[in-house]
Amino acid sequence: MGILVVGSIGLDDIQTPAGRRQRTLGGSCTYFATAASLYAPVSIVGVVGTDFPQEHFEFLRSRNIDLRGLQVVEGKTFFWAGRYGEDFGDAETLETQLNVFADFHPQIPEDLKDSEYVFLANIDPTLQIEVLQQMRAPRLTALDSMNFWISSKKEVLTEAFSMVDIVILNETEVRMFTEESNLLLATRQLLALGPKALIIKRGEHGAMLVTDGQRLGESFFLVPAYPLDSVVDPTGAGDAFAAGFMGYLAREGDLSLRTLRRAVVHGTVVASFTVQDFSIDRLRTLTMAEIEARYNELRYLTSFDPLSAQEFGVLQRPFKA
Amino acid sequence: MGILVVGSIGLDDIQTPAGRRQRTLGGSCTYFATAASLYAPVSIVGVVGTDFPQEHFEFLRSRNIDLRGLQVVEGKTFFWAGRYGEDFGDAETLETQLNVFADFHPQIPEDLKDSEYVFLANIDPTLQIEVLQQMRAPRLTALDSMNFWISSKKEVLTEAFSMVDIVILNETEVRMFTEESNLLLATRQLLALGPKALIIKRGEHGAMLVTDGQRLGESFFLVPAYPLDSVVDPTGAGDAFAAGFMGYLAREGDLSLRTLRRAVVHGTVVASFTVQDFSIDRLRTLTMAEIEARYNELRYLTSFDPLSAQEFGVLQRPFKA
Repeated sequence: MGILVVGSIGLDDIQTPAGRRQRTLGGSCTYFATAASLYAPVSIVGVVGTDFPQEHFEFLRSRNIDLRGLQVVEGKTFFWAGRYGEDFGDAETLETQLNVFADFHPQIPEDLKDSEYVFLANIDPTLQIEVLQQMRAPRLTALDSMNFWISSKKEVLTEAFSMVDIVILNETEVRMFTEESNLLLATRQLLALGPKALIIKRGEHGAMLVTDGQRLGESFFLVPAYPLDSVVDPTGAGDAFAAGFMGYLAREGDLSLRTLRRAVVHGTVVASFTVQDFSIDRLRTLTMAEIEARYNELRYLTSFDPLSAQEFGVLQRPFKA
Repeated sequence: MGILVVGSIGLDDIQTPAGRRQRTLGGSCTYFATAASLYAPVSIVGVVGTDFPQEHFEFLRSRNIDLRGLQVVEGKTFFWAGRYGEDFGDAETLETQLNVFADFHPQIPEDLKDSEYVFLANIDPTLQIEVLQQMRAPRLTALDSMNFWISSKKEVLTEAFSMVDIVILNETEVRMFTEESNLLLATRQLLALGPKALIIKRGEHGAMLVTDGQRLGESFFLVPAYPLDSVVDPTGAGDAFAAGFMGYLAREGDLSLRTLRRAVVHGTVVASFTVQDFSIDRLRTLTMAEIEARYNELRYLTSFDPLSAQEFGVLQRPFKA
């Protein structure tokens, strides 16, 4: 039930309409590991420089995150600076310094090659494939990617898609990769490449799980996003989504369609908390009880079912007498 | 349980990536009345010119739509020409000829002033208010509007909002009216103006019902759109949504939150059929059995509930053995 995650660990400069944070803890692997550690044991494979602050090592260890696969290399840690506009949409990248990440090749510690759950966070698809080739018999593999790799390494990315069970992309990336504006047709194209399921993240519009592009019914699941009255920092929302999703699956230990659906809701919920503070700050204090409360609320918010209101102890008052 | 609708009846020139139709039956009132007539008796209040084709009168009568409030005035019928791009997003208006609509003032036939359900389709808010002033004691009033009235007649529109029970807008219009990018904060602003509920149409992302902007829980309902693998013509989707919503409420005859939620799903479903053909063509053949089948499918597509699969006779197969 342990989860192996490979991705970036970095220091971020983040500007949003809610404020600014400098040299704050960031990276896809960091968001994922912090959130997923609420559900199951997590092992990180990645790299940091010798400048990586001691407090961050201590924090990750405090979450019982296994750092044996985290290389510490002479030099500077990966750095990213980005800015979000008033609509909290896609970040504008102001600066990227790969630093020690430039020569990174993931080395999976021997016993971690038996990890059951593997998440390939958004990194070069060549490295994602290197990881998959080192794994012995993972029960479930999933990967995330981004526009940069779609435009620069589409062929390698296509190969990576064919090697994993689940591809997780956002709506824009799906349309960009498939060059198809209809999302349903796009899902068919992507599933034809080999993955067993596709998750499409739709930001403030929620998420879609597709296990068979040819049919609706049991093959599709749609969940809206949890409505928030304030967003502070969207960074890491996608990684936190993946963490809630993979974390729930690893904890439950089964891969029925029902569990997959619930895992997508957990992803949606964990992402919704993540964007309510800078960096991983909300994830530092987040509890499973809070996740479950919001899960239940989202279930009620989306239910057509006449029994739901009572089920949740909410009184059904007539809208108009 | 009868519904009164006031809005435009026109002839449209429509170009979409799926083709073109010239001088086809259009107008907000037409879409609404055709779809709502599947649920309840509908009366139209509007105007057409003497050029309005006889076949269209006959079609409307064949749906038992009451045309006593439809004025036929010397001159040409309202005409609109629009074009949709590859993404089937907002239409580009190529031409608008108000014609007989320019001097239209709604006159409600005496006995229709007692109509219980009143839908004010997207027309000048001054006319919407004129209608409300003629109604005696409607059980439920709802209005739709558009960006044009938000920018040109915001004050009158604000007054109209304060006079109805339900405001129905799309996401862009909500943000435009409130100048607030956060949808939750925007809903609070709008509900503070007086309406008891707000429905936000989100196109391919579904719809949101809000009955109290201060709280989530029972006050919010979120439903995703029904996924479609082909869209032919998005014209009238919003009016068809309103028709499914108002039609269901009128048919059920109660205004509990549960019924309101289900009505929003009916709106979503009716809209999804409407965009699958040009003009009102899909609505001509649409049956209640088809609406109910898609309603149930959407319910299954959005359910977190472990019992749903059995409930819908769908076998739960494990995703991976």
